[in-house]
Amino acid sequence: TSEGGSEPVAAQAAGSGPTFKELVVTTEDNITTIMLNRPTKKNAITTEMYNEIVAALDQAAKDSSVLTVITGAGDFYCSGNDLTNFTKIPEGGIEELAKKSGDLLRNYIKAYIDFPKPLVAVVNGPAVGVSVTVMALFDLVYATDRATFHTPFSKLGQSPEGCSSYTFPKIMGASKASEMLLFNKKLTAAQACDQGLVTEVFPDASFQTEVWSRLKAYAQLPPNSLALSKQLIRAAERERLYAVNDAEVERLVERWLSDECMAAIMGFFQGKSKL
Amino acid sequence: TSEGGSEPVAAQAAGSGPTFKELVVTTEDNITTIMLNRPTKKNAITTEMYNEIVAALDQAAKDSSVLTVITGAGDFYCSGNDLTNFTKIPEGGIEELAKKSGDLLRNYIKAYIDFPKPLVAVVNGPAVGVSVTVMALFDLVYATDRATFHTPFSKLGQSPEGCSSYTFPKIMGASKASEMLLFNKKLTAAQACDQGLVTEVFPDASFQTEVWSRLKAYAQLPPNSLALSKQLIRAAERERLYAVNDAEVERLVERWLSDECMAAIMGFFQGKSKL
Amino acid sequence: TSEGGSEPVAAQAAGSGPTFKELVVTTEDNITTIMLNRPTKKNAITTEMYNEIVAALDQAAKDSSVLTVITGAGDFYCSGNDLTNFTKIPEGGIEELAKKSGDLLRNYIKAYIDFPKPLVAVVNGPAVGVSVTVMALFDLVYATDRATFHTPFSKLGQSPEGCSSYTFPKIMGASKASEMLLFNKKLTAAQACDQGLVTEVFPDASFQTEVWSRLKAYAQLPPNSLALSKQLIRAAERERLYAVNDAEVERLVERWLSDECMAAIMGFFQGKSKL
Repeated sequence: TSEGGSEPVAAQAAGSGPTFKELVVTTEDNITTIMLNRPTKKNAITTEMYNEIVAALDQAAKDSSVLTVITGAGDFYCSGNDLTNFTKIPEGGIEELAKKSGDLLRNYIKAYIDFPKPLVAVVNGPAVGVSVTVMALFDLVYATDRATFHTPFSKLGQSPEGCSSYTFPKIMGASKASEMLLFNKKLTAAQACDQGLVTEVFPDASFQTEVWSRLKAYAQLPPNSLALSKQLIRAAERERLYAVNDAEVERLVERWLSDECMAAIMGFFQGKSKL
Repeated sequence: TSEGGSEPVAAQAAGSGPTFKELVVTTEDNITTIMLNRPTKKNAITTEMYNEIVAALDQAAKDSSVLTVITGAGDFYCSGNDLTNFTKIPEGGIEELAKKSGDLLRNYIKAYIDFPKPLVAVVNGPAVGVSVTVMALFDLVYATDRATFHTPFSKLGQSPEGCSSYTFPKIMGASKASEMLLFNKKLTAAQACDQGLVTEVFPDASFQTEVWSRLKAYAQLPPNSLALSKQLIRAAERERLYAVNDAEVERLVERWLSDECMAAIMGFFQGKSKL
Repeated sequence: TSEGGSEPVAAQAAGSGPTFKELVVTTEDNITTIMLNRPTKKNAITTEMYNEIVAALDQAAKDSSVLTVITGAGDFYCSGNDLTNFTKIPEGGIEELAKKSGDLLRNYIKAYIDFPKPLVAVVNGPAVGVSVTVMALFDLVYATDRATFHTPFSKLGQSPEGCSSYTFPKIMGASKASEMLLFNKKLTAAQACDQGLVTEVFPDASFQTEVWSRLKAYAQLPPNSLALSKQLIRAAERERLYAVNDAEVERLVERWLSDECMAAIMGFFQGKSKL
């Protein structure tokens, strides 16, 4: 089952929905779980996985489950955008690559903004980049005490996404948000909890047991009440989040074509820089 | 006096204003105190009390006091909406009841949004439901360490009100706000303070003494400066709060007519469900 | 150098920019430092200093530095607005003085809202009034454990400025923001950090060493990525901040002409009142 610990598990068909190459999607006890399943690559998100996650969220929105969970297979939650995505240059050149990557990202973030049911992150290990920024769009974020939260945008010559340029200052104040988003500060799970990004931290030994027994209880609550309450909370911010997503993607497309970003990514692949 | 501890006290006429059946309203030392006075019912708010509190706030807005305090008689602060309000079905049936209850609630919350002077909650014990959600519309919230903060909306098939769908995520971040508003997490006073809902927590033994001596000092500050500063803070959010209040009430009126909500309230009265 | 501790230092010419009477402005290691240099007056801000700080920020925005730091000479960070500013009454009388003071303040706050690079407060001691409120417009706020944070507006019959009527409730919730902005609560550095106003607190003995070594490392990050990321964060709030600044200044101009304010400032100069 999806609760079973850190090993990737065989995919179970989830009704008549699409099947996935890099995800394991299961539904049990009123909970649909989307598990990122590239543990040997720390669950880094490839171009294909972005599309698969969007499809899995779309499917979960329509199925009969009450809660939807995102988690990672293995010891990592997610290492963020797979930088090899930037090495597959299409015929249109890097301008085309940047534009397409921007469209992909905008669409990916929009799937989180628009998700109509309670969405839960079960953060089973370190999280990096876009997997951290979107956490502010979840309704619950449970983390093992082994988890860390790292958004090294400027080290890669990039800029914040996932609506974090708006949500992080809103949650933790500008002075702490900037330390993460501009200056690459890596937070421990306890720090991320103190600063409002994480709902609660659990000891790693009991993490899966405690979290899933709690989620199973939550999944027995009146489903419409949960979904409509979540939508009410989101409604107060939805238009703002769309606008922020657009602004962030626009800036990031420019950044991807900048000398700073190209040099930083080149350095990363040449092993010259460490995140 | 209103500072005298946990016993309900005889009402003192507060100038030429209205008299109240379920409230004790007093003015002393530049402070108008509105005490919910239904201690045998844990100060649950009846339809009549909603209207009385609106009238008392209106009166306090116009009197010469500098601060206005809301507190509860007895060991409870307030157990929220009195669910027997839902059992008094008018001729127009439950649709009529839901519509009228919505109008009552919208008007009640509007009284908090529009209150023109500093408003202080002296939380003398556990608080539930709408008495918790409106706390984010107060200027100071002092709590005894016996207080708890509980908003079990989804257990009753309902949805958040009091502008909490906007204010709670703003104050504590979405991941902690949803645990309260969607998943019924009950906070201790210390947790509510950590998450920004409460200004400060005091030991129960010294709570009344410490809080009232502080408030008496505050009530000596320049009154116009206090009122105008409070209005300045509120002005930045007023239109947003009106819109959120409207959206929340609209959703709640739908919820009250839903099968989920009716079943949950029925279960409550049949002793089948516990909050 | 600007890192050298608590003694005011000789001004170094910073390129071809303006020279300053009450500031020491230096650029070193990609960091432009604006040091308030009136230590015998606890770095209280005179009318001239407001204009000098605006000019220094304007110059720093255009120079080649990556980070800009504001700090204070001596043991104080800044004691806020120099109240002797109110004693220099022009020919047009106090109405003219209030109007001009309002224009000065609006322009001063706008310089913070519009600053295009990461802005860092190195809070080397106690901070009062407008030097505290603008901290919510910085990207990083590092404080010695000797620092305190105090905004005694109502004691002086005044009202909040620096966009704090919006930023403080956003960062720390209304119930804690009001205790500072309405009721003059002075925060310790640790409290200001808990409430999100301060990024991190350091022991006084190692404060300068730790902070400056960290800032020098940050100043090596890709400059455009930093500036554009900061602008992205600000863009989400810029129009709102302009509107709040205008509303606050308008209210404050009224306040300065009020009996409450005049009596409070008179009392201050007669030694009758203490902040």
